Amino acid sequence: VSCGTVVIVGVGLIGGSIGKALRESGLARRVIGVGRDTARLELAQRLGAIDDAAQDDAAAYAASSVAVVCTPVSRVAQDVCRVARYVPDDALIMDVGSTKRVIVETVERDPRAAERFLGAHPIAGSDRSGVEHARADLFRGSTCVLTPTQCVQPTLVGRAADFWTALGCHVLEMSPEAHDQALAHTSHAPHLVASALSRLSPPQWHALAGGAFRDMTRVAGADTELWVAVFRQNRAAVLHALDALQTNLAELRHALTDDDPERLAALWEVGRAARSRFVASDQLRDPKPPPSC
Amino acid sequence: VSCGTVVIVGVGLIGGSIGKALRESGLARRVIGVGRDTARLELAQRLGAIDDAAQDDAAAYAASSVAVVCTPVSRVAQDVCRVARYVPDDALIMDVGSTKRVIVETVERDPRAAERFLGAHPIAGSDRSGVEHARADLFRGSTCVLTPTQCVQPTLVGRAADFWTALGCHVLEMSPEAHDQALAHTSHAPHLVASALSRLSPPQWHALAGGAFRDMTRVAGADTELWVAVFRQNRAAVLHALDALQTNLAELRHALTDDDPERLAALWEVGRAARSRFVASDQLRDPKPPPSC
Repeated sequence: VSCGTVVIVGVGLIGGSIGKALRESGLARRVIGVGRDTARLELAQRLGAIDDAAQDDAAAYAASSVAVVCTPVSRVAQDVCRVARYVPDDALIMDVGSTKRVIVETVERDPRAAERFLGAHPIAGSDRSGVEHARADLFRGSTCVLTPTQCVQPTLVGRAADFWTALGCHVLEMSPEAHDQALAHTSHAPHLVASALSRLSPPQWHALAGGAFRDMTRVAGADTELWVAVFRQNRAAVLHALDALQTNLAELRHALTDDDPERLAALWEVGRAARSRFVASDQLRDPKPPPSC
Repeated sequence: VSCGTVVIVGVGLIGGSIGKALRESGLARRVIGVGRDTARLELAQRLGAIDDAAQDDAAAYAASSVAVVCTPVSRVAQDVCRVARYVPDDALIMDVGSTKRVIVETVERDPRAAERFLGAHPIAGSDRSGVEHARADLFRGSTCVLTPTQCVQPTLVGRAADFWTALGCHVLEMSPEAHDQALAHTSHAPHLVASALSRLSPPQWHALAGGAFRDMTRVAGADTELWVAVFRQNRAAVLHALDALQTNLAELRHALTDDDPERLAALWEVGRAARSRFVASDQLRDPKPPPSC
């Protein structure tokens, strides 16, 4: 299956990894990168993430059958609408944003964009950003959520599913709202917790921090602009997830305050069982995880 | 430097790793394992963690110049006091517990134990337990905290420092109270957070969980009995650390409730800078981390 010419708007970690995967698999006839920073685009080309760099104008999009908008979530909707003005009528436009409801709602106010757009979120990434960390296998074994609404033609959904499957993803379909609610709990609130934990230990205690601290603060190093935009676009669901976390923590706290070993053990076992279930499903999805280089 | 015959009481992940490191480095003339479960001791011997298995009686300890008690923190103090009855007068007894104040206070009520005991905590481990996960390089690049009090002779502190340095640790000395306060923030409270996070996402959302969730819930899989005992022995400091975390999270929460991007970004940057500082100091301690196998 070839998906013709693919234009990637925003060639960072995710956009660059899509480009590399498309080029290595021969899935796209040509991969064009569009971005505001010419030097970064040249780097992307040198690193093999795109075939050509292009200006953000009509010419870049005219021959594209697929456009993937990989800009920060605060800019995705406007970028999708602009791209929609230039792509051929039968083009498929997708994004890769970590939030979906606000993006989909905004795009759907623009009829030409709404007809061609399908929200997508490949759940893969890193606390590192930039095309220099892009990898062709970034998506292998990961889940890609598609959030079709009634505006979206079923043939576009099929093309999108083929696209992400070819990149190694397991494709799931759900509503933008259901996506945002789940991600608030599995990703967005945990990012805020990582940040709060990171601030918890002054530098003089860093020598006393082991694997738990290292792993649990990793994503606190992620890009500020990108993540502030994610938290804001999914504000209600993230606040709800923080409340639920607070409830769980309060239960542990009360058992500790009461010095109640049975209650502490029972609560710990619930978390332990949930972790073990997660590990089992994680390994089922991706038996051989890519090296974390 | 040889430390003669070393007896390890409790040959699990930590005790077994000490045994393997002592045997591989030739640091001990002989490594004896003591434990309640004969089958586990035989496994430890087969895996090369100990030279010999012994019953928990006078004979096991009579020829030991160093005894390392690696039982769960709820049992450490009584095990140290029993071992103290049997070891030679010039023996050094250490533990490896993740808490120190309660253990040290309890041991110091027994004069014979108090004269020979030095609290130790090598900050290395895993969410996996058992001698089958023991590794000779587990301690390489990690910090080992020693908590001498005025009861402890300086020569014992020197011997203990040599012991852990030979195993690859950076040795730090501090009071039991300072240790427990720091560890509550860098490890114990984060473990409770991991458990609370693990329970936050029902199984149907596991496919929507990425690297943040995977890393931040890892230690929620740790052994229940071991960790409930740690939380209880360091109860006041852990509750204090949970309060401090709550304050940090509340700041982020308020900035999000107010939809204040500048405040959110400023708070995120504080966590990000702390993480980056931690990563730098972590790499300084251990430029070549051992494989995580």
